[in-house]
Amino acid sequence: MDTTFLQQAFSDSQVLTVPWSIDYFSVIVGVLTGALFACDRKLDIIGTVVLGLLTGYGGGIIRDVLLQDHGVYFTSHPDLILICIAICAFVFYFRGLFRHLDATVFFADALSVGLFALAGASKAFSLEQGFVLSVILGAITAVGGGAVRDICVGETPGIFQQSNFYAVAGLGGSLAFVILAYGGSPLPLAGVACVFVVVFLRYWSVYFDWKTRNEADLTPHVARGVGKVKRVVSGVFLHGGDATVAQKERRRRGRWRRSREKRD
Amino acid sequence: MDTTFLQQAFSDSQVLTVPWSIDYFSVIVGVLTGALFACDRKLDIIGTVVLGLLTGYGGGIIRDVLLQDHGVYFTSHPDLILICIAICAFVFYFRGLFRHLDATVFFADALSVGLFALAGASKAFSLEQGFVLSVILGAITAVGGGAVRDICVGETPGIFQQSNFYAVAGLGGSLAFVILAYGGSPLPLAGVACVFVVVFLRYWSVYFDWKTRNEADLTPHVARGVGKVKRVVSGVFLHGGDATVAQKERRRRGRWRRSREKRD
Amino acid sequence: MDTTFLQQAFSDSQVLTVPWSIDYFSVIVGVLTGALFACDRKLDIIGTVVLGLLTGYGGGIIRDVLLQDHGVYFTSHPDLILICIAICAFVFYFRGLFRHLDATVFFADALSVGLFALAGASKAFSLEQGFVLSVILGAITAVGGGAVRDICVGETPGIFQQSNFYAVAGLGGSLAFVILAYGGSPLPLAGVACVFVVVFLRYWSVYFDWKTRNEADLTPHVARGVGKVKRVVSGVFLHGGDATVAQKERRRRGRWRRSREKRD
Repeated sequence: MDTTFLQQAFSDSQVLTVPWSIDYFSVIVGVLTGALFACDRKLDIIGTVVLGLLTGYGGGIIRDVLLQDHGVYFTSHPDLILICIAICAFVFYFRGLFRHLDATVFFADALSVGLFALAGASKAFSLEQGFVLSVILGAITAVGGGAVRDICVGETPGIFQQSNFYAVAGLGGSLAFVILAYGGSPLPLAGVACVFVVVFLRYWSVYFDWKTRNEADLTPHVARGVGKVKRVVSGVFLHGGDATVAQKERRRRGRWRRSREKRD
Repeated sequence: MDTTFLQQAFSDSQVLTVPWSIDYFSVIVGVLTGALFACDRKLDIIGTVVLGLLTGYGGGIIRDVLLQDHGVYFTSHPDLILICIAICAFVFYFRGLFRHLDATVFFADALSVGLFALAGASKAFSLEQGFVLSVILGAITAVGGGAVRDICVGETPGIFQQSNFYAVAGLGGSLAFVILAYGGSPLPLAGVACVFVVVFLRYWSVYFDWKTRNEADLTPHVARGVGKVKRVVSGVFLHGGDATVAQKERRRRGRWRRSREKRD
Repeated sequence: MDTTFLQQAFSDSQVLTVPWSIDYFSVIVGVLTGALFACDRKLDIIGTVVLGLLTGYGGGIIRDVLLQDHGVYFTSHPDLILICIAICAFVFYFRGLFRHLDATVFFADALSVGLFALAGASKAFSLEQGFVLSVILGAITAVGGGAVRDICVGETPGIFQQSNFYAVAGLGGSLAFVILAYGGSPLPLAGVACVFVVVFLRYWSVYFDWKTRNEADLTPHVARGVGKVKRVVSGVFLHGGDATVAQKERRRRGRWRRSREKRD
């Protein structure tokens, strides 16, 4: 973290210059998780490198293509690509080294999702894309790479399914950044908040095993509620406010029918 | 439908200004069908929103990326995105409400495919992309979103498989628009024809259960045909036009061989 | 091959003008292989055409979108699109004709991968994208179409899995072109070398059945190596260079322990 970054924290600049080392870190961690994923699917070295690069760069590529702003991040840092390919090759040949680093990989991944959300949201914010698009582009940058990776091996992306918060965390961090940025907070502060929210939500959801729901049809509940409201309203208007009259009548008929059925 | 639209019908303008309400309608219906699709696959709220947006915007995004014309429709209407997210959330929480609306959803979907084909073909036409590309971009806009949706959950897109006309309908409508537009017809008329053709083809194919074929190898038929032609031609040239001589000869030999085989 | 091409071989031009017929040939062969692939998956005519076009144009579209240079090859040659659609339809209706052409299709495919690698690498080179990106964009153009085709039917792309060299061949050809081009060789010569390397690697790998490996964890080997080094080093520093003292000691103890175990 260099002095420019700290100076910015107290200036009025509306463009957040994220130090290149932070961008590099998040891409590298993304590439690492993608390569590990590919190794677990028994892909060859080509598949490992391609899935690694897709996971690390995918979200940014989608963002840049949607913004059509002539600066795809992927093509503007060839040195980073070389580093990433080297990492993928290392993972492919030394998969075993990472078997005992699960906790470390999990933390690095959560951090990198946070930094990706920051990179996406701040880029959209500095290009004045408005509130909604800044939040969405932040979330896409954060988790788009992982979704593309899953689609490329013919699986339904994990973030689309019942799971611990991942896309939700990216969305939360992106939202925090954009709210603070539009609220006039210094951008570096908003950036720190963004990363913090993402990491916090991710750990929180895993710790308490909070999951998104894969089914939540409220129609029956609401239908019952609407039915109740209807009865009350009809009682008020049709029976002069004496709702109980209608209800007693209904219960009486029910009892009479049941007793008749018993006799038969 | 506002007056500008009707005035246009009798002007010479070569750019069709589709009222924004029509664009909004088709995107919203696309989003709705995508969200219903996602609910049926038991995806969570994130998956429902993403698949909904992909279905509604996917075709347009592919068109705009291929045209590279600096105006991705998705990023230029943030208010519509908010509406679409609200619709996806509503579908996710009130899936039950749509169980008895199949016929309505079917009609709305056919209409929206028609309007998408119109939007794609008219944009390509106004950017002077030529006959072929206008038809293709119209068809891509019409059914591209649904294809992307299917690919994202690891399925082969339905439009690639034996099915009732869907892509065929989109292609037909797109073709109708471009033929009429290049034929000098007023663009609004061509637009109405486009939508009509799509809806007509879609209903027609479902009503009569017309399906595209998943296999149609004509080679054996043609081989037989070519064989016949060859015999006739050889007869003409080798036997002085007396084709029957050669045929009789062949039949005689065949009979002789068969009778010999019987005796053995 | 026209005279311009030959003249270029002896000029200093840094832009390789590939004759349009070569581009057309490689796209057409790509489309042909994609259509055959679609027929084998029992897709309908729409699926055959779309997969054909995706295979033929996919790699180029990815390259052009990543370069964002306002000239998507797909949209700039409508006549070629028409030819390709006709080819797809022909393949769909006359699949049987291609059953005995496997060797021809294999050769044409290898050649077209080489020409695609050339087209991608030379375009990136002429846009001065640098060494790394030229190689990568060449490889993406060469095999990206096939990968997109596989993903579209929900399969893990063949090039990601254990297989004969395909992506490796494209990468090798692309690398050969870029090394020669940066080395100052005349571009047409580099182009011929690129195509030759691709075709050679492809045939070579099929002939000797060389395959990429789907698993190659070197960690155990390296761990053993590191252990040996550690012992030698500790011997040097802890036992005054007399490594054998420590080793003998260890062996002696081992023998002693084993003999005791025998007695028990």
